[in-house]
Amino acid sequence: MSDLAALIDRLPPEVVVTDPDLIASFVRDESHFTPAGAPALVLIPRTTEEVATALAVAHELGVAVVTRGAGSGLSGGANATEGCIVLSTRRLSRIVEVDTTERLLVAQPGVVTADVRAEAERHGLFYPPDPGSVATCTIGGNVATNAGGMCCVKYGVTGDYVLGLEVVLADGRTMRTGRRTVKGVAGYDLTRLFVGSEGTLGVITEVTLRLLPTPSEAHSVLATFGDVAGAGRAVQAITQTRVTPSVFEILDRTTLRAIESMTPLGFDGSVGAVLLLQSDSSTAKEDAEALADACESADALDVVQSDNPDEARTLLEARRLALPSLERLGDWLLDDVCVPRSQVVALIEHVETIASDEGLTIGLFGHAGDGNMHPTVIYDGSTPEGRDTALRAFDRITASALELGGTVTGEHGVGRLKTQWLRRELDAVATEVHGAIKRALDPTSTLNPGVALPAE
Amino acid sequence: MSDLAALIDRLPPEVVVTDPDLIASFVRDESHFTPAGAPALVLIPRTTEEVATALAVAHELGVAVVTRGAGSGLSGGANATEGCIVLSTRRLSRIVEVDTTERLLVAQPGVVTADVRAEAERHGLFYPPDPGSVATCTIGGNVATNAGGMCCVKYGVTGDYVLGLEVVLADGRTMRTGRRTVKGVAGYDLTRLFVGSEGTLGVITEVTLRLLPTPSEAHSVLATFGDVAGAGRAVQAITQTRVTPSVFEILDRTTLRAIESMTPLGFDGSVGAVLLLQSDSSTAKEDAEALADACESADALDVVQSDNPDEARTLLEARRLALPSLERLGDWLLDDVCVPRSQVVALIEHVETIASDEGLTIGLFGHAGDGNMHPTVIYDGSTPEGRDTALRAFDRITASALELGGTVTGEHGVGRLKTQWLRRELDAVATEVHGAIKRALDPTSTLNPGVALPAE
Repeated sequence: MSDLAALIDRLPPEVVVTDPDLIASFVRDESHFTPAGAPALVLIPRTTEEVATALAVAHELGVAVVTRGAGSGLSGGANATEGCIVLSTRRLSRIVEVDTTERLLVAQPGVVTADVRAEAERHGLFYPPDPGSVATCTIGGNVATNAGGMCCVKYGVTGDYVLGLEVVLADGRTMRTGRRTVKGVAGYDLTRLFVGSEGTLGVITEVTLRLLPTPSEAHSVLATFGDVAGAGRAVQAITQTRVTPSVFEILDRTTLRAIESMTPLGFDGSVGAVLLLQSDSSTAKEDAEALADACESADALDVVQSDNPDEARTLLEARRLALPSLERLGDWLLDDVCVPRSQVVALIEHVETIASDEGLTIGLFGHAGDGNMHPTVIYDGSTPEGRDTALRAFDRITASALELGGTVTGEHGVGRLKTQWLRRELDAVATEVHGAIKRALDPTSTLNPGVALPAE
Repeated sequence: MSDLAALIDRLPPEVVVTDPDLIASFVRDESHFTPAGAPALVLIPRTTEEVATALAVAHELGVAVVTRGAGSGLSGGANATEGCIVLSTRRLSRIVEVDTTERLLVAQPGVVTADVRAEAERHGLFYPPDPGSVATCTIGGNVATNAGGMCCVKYGVTGDYVLGLEVVLADGRTMRTGRRTVKGVAGYDLTRLFVGSEGTLGVITEVTLRLLPTPSEAHSVLATFGDVAGAGRAVQAITQTRVTPSVFEILDRTTLRAIESMTPLGFDGSVGAVLLLQSDSSTAKEDAEALADACESADALDVVQSDNPDEARTLLEARRLALPSLERLGDWLLDDVCVPRSQVVALIEHVETIASDEGLTIGLFGHAGDGNMHPTVIYDGSTPEGRDTALRAFDRITASALELGGTVTGEHGVGRLKTQWLRRELDAVATEVHGAIKRALDPTSTLNPGVALPAE
């Protein structure tokens, strides 16, 4: 701590948090089973210059810096390390500019994602990315993790909307990446290198986002199936239509039971899987008909279409209840894997086998349209055996995704949770290249050490 | 050359080209005003392993390697350096796989882009990127330059369709980047780092591309205006509609005159600018009406809509004739800048001033919808004064794009043509970071030295 006096001296007192009680709330994100240490102090800078000063001094002192948005991450990417500085973006919370002609929005990293979306909407524009934590997470965290959401199946991920960044590097140097035009190929794509790098290459201090025109009024479809195989047939049938759904979600039997026990929506015991679909194209109503037909053709038990925007929202309610319902069943460990679209049913079947083998409840829901699934392991965290069993199931699920030609993380990031898994996914040379890039930009490994890189 | 005996020994004779007459055709791409040297030899490998062997030995010998697709580039990115090895991807020309369920296509780098598009079409799918050279350029070159085209205004650039790569690094190590799923955040986005890196970080030996469903039947609109300002008003009006055009091109008076003198299409002296528009959405016909209305509201002289697919294609004919028509007027130097959409008219006016100041003909056409413009300087290449004047105009145009908040290259790349301009566009720290990444992946600067990086 005494080492840090030099740092404290260089920053205004209101930027520096040393109260242990306050510091305690900056230790972890919302992940489970991830290591965390006690930070030496927390900095809450208000300007890019204060961020630059903090990083320059931390770099001189050789103290680790962990950058933190809302702390809503699920893989430990914002967890503190022992004796580190936590750099909170909370006060970098200004929407700097909205340009409706160029359809872009410039924001500091601490702006809540829902506020970005609302500001775009006020200007008749649309910022698509909608991670589950949209109401609380920050745009800086979204960029750092390349966050996804339900929109991705049609609109892509956060990175697809980032035109440029202001970044402070590990040693305090500040640079801009990208541009304000929608096209441009001048230089390496540094913007995309920082997107998803989970705070290991620099601290993002400003984001320039591309916006879209507001989509048309959405129409939704809810289809129930006797089993997951039926839903899987519908997924294939939908892929063969010309419709690009704007929502394409699946819920399994375990998840539906959990929902029913919290908020009865009328899914009885005959329902083994649900698909939730939406179109927001200019032919949304016709699209919804086509989606409904595809579900019927796959022997859906029941297919409901929305008649108005309120109904369209209501039909998706089950998806929002999925995680809160499963969380009530016990301790939970949420996985995030992505498999090729055609392997979604195989993954679900593997998860059912794993649940049965391990004697666990594992609910499964997720983005069927892009294969990004969230198996949620319910376990007894009060015993070492309970925790071991949960971890074993989690590992088997993640291994299954790799075996099916998928990836170990679709949208939650590697964080501290999956560095071993990243090592398994990458080949040896790609692992070396990750190290070479990290060393090129952060040679002393000041920024978020132990995160996002393959375990050694 | 004697140094290279070790390399020649390691490769099958049919891979090595030493005949000076043959080598001569591998010296330059289609750019003007770019330096080039005489290669020592040309390699035309047939496998990733042969590429890896070539790079490993070249690296040991310290000989530069310039990778070349079709050589259709316009900024010197594939120009040879004196004594280098040119590595042609010509024989890596196999489409490895099309997976219609996952909507992906795997290709070697030497596959011609039109063949990628045709193969996708045969499977009822769509690969959008359509650079002007689509009939001859290769997918590897497209990935290396992050090539664009008319599609970009709706569909984005080549990089938006690259899911993963196989890459041979400067020292011959081979790795895979990315994945076969549409979503995934495991590790740094190495795929995007290689996309657009113009052969300076590795040699791409396989590309996994994302495909889309075939779009609906397109409807086109051609609108003529008395002057560029009128077309500019229409651009703004179109931006305010809900339509996302799939083509959104502009041609100026100089370009129209050049077209009329080659292939009369009926643009008389009253026409000062033309907009070419298309929609391929499921409501393409209604979209075309809305686009036509927007043009009418901006006082178009004449607005024509297509009635069938043949007409839709015919209405875009002027755009395809633009460069061939201008090329007939003399020597030509094609620029490629991108400005914010709202600055397209300002850029055109600057170009008109520059043409008048310098006593030159400068035709201008390009992608109005995304601000990516191609001013084409016609000059007398037979005298030093003629060439100096052309270069001065080119530099003034590029400077103008930067002043208007744009970028020095929208889609053609930096190559050897714009390394000084890249230096001006990037800030000092971003320039340092480019160098750090290049050193991390190619410490001896074996790969395409002098290309794509800011001039020192």
